Amino acid sequence: MRIREATADDWPQIYPFWSEIVEAGETYAYPLGLVSDEAREMWMYDHVVVAVEGEGEDEQILGSAKMGPNRPGRGSHIGTASFMVSSAARGKGIGRALGDYCVQWHRDEGFHGIQFNAVVETNTTAVRLWQSLGFEIIGTVPDAFDSRSHGRVGLHVMYLPLG
Amino acid sequence: MRIREATADDWPQIYPFWSEIVEAGETYAYPLGLVSDEAREMWMYDHVVVAVEGEGEDEQILGSAKMGPNRPGRGSHIGTASFMVSSAARGKGIGRALGDYCVQWHRDEGFHGIQFNAVVETNTTAVRLWQSLGFEIIGTVPDAFDSRSHGRVGLHVMYLPLG
Repeated sequence: MRIREATADDWPQIYPFWSEIVEAGETYAYPLGLVSDEAREMWMYDHVVVAVEGEGEDEQILGSAKMGPNRPGRGSHIGTASFMVSSAARGKGIGRALGDYCVQWHRDEGFHGIQFNAVVETNTTAVRLWQSLGFEIIGTVPDAFDSRSHGRVGLHVMYLPLG
Repeated sequence: MRIREATADDWPQIYPFWSEIVEAGETYAYPLGLVSDEAREMWMYDHVVVAVEGEGEDEQILGSAKMGPNRPGRGSHIGTASFMVSSAARGKGIGRALGDYCVQWHRDEGFHGIQFNAVVETNTTAVRLWQSLGFEIIGTVPDAFDSRSHGRVGLHVMYLPLG
């Protein structure tokens, strides 16, 4: 498995798991029911990478992450990121590899810290992964996410300072 | 003073204080140096209101607020809002009137709560105003705003549950 920058040609392989994850209703507050072109505008900007295995025509995309400034102007020294891993590729450390990449990318680009704005509190795999990378829960907005299976649950704001 | 829905014709009166506030560098992480058309796209969407005094051709816009869902999809039951008051009109309770309007609007529209994502901690007038309306500080992202006069200061996430 390796991580490389995404190209426009990658989107047709990203959209199926992107859409599956959003529609599952457990982890992301993106608009629901987006067609491919609409979803692409939500994901393919700033710095986008893919985790892949295989070579050439056999290359398969296992997951994707996007990252960049969390706010413009006087907030642009803090980064943010989002992550999607194909359901077929879970449990293989793809999320961790993308997370490690994300932290290093922000360090290399000179960001002062990384803020995740809305980590669903019942998405414990993600919460624990980010905590293992050093992120702390700054606070939790109660009932802010309408989880399909859990009902209204909190959204964590998480933060990692970068020395 | 009264509050009414904004129209496209109001923007030329809003932009001067909007721009002055953003460029002052103390309260908002909007992009810097925006011309009028660019700034309008950042403000004139969702539900936008203006606080005005005077009638007809003598009507003057003293401040503006915009409000709507904080997130799409499974986060759209929580609202958010932003506020700008002309420097010439401060200390007259315009911010409080717009805040009261904002809370009532969210109640009327059936929102479950209101989240402010980025209240600059050194903007104590705003912090105290929102607290007086019942908002609580959920958490503070350290050093996340580059204040012109204070350097890097925290951004509060504030939240008001609506019964």
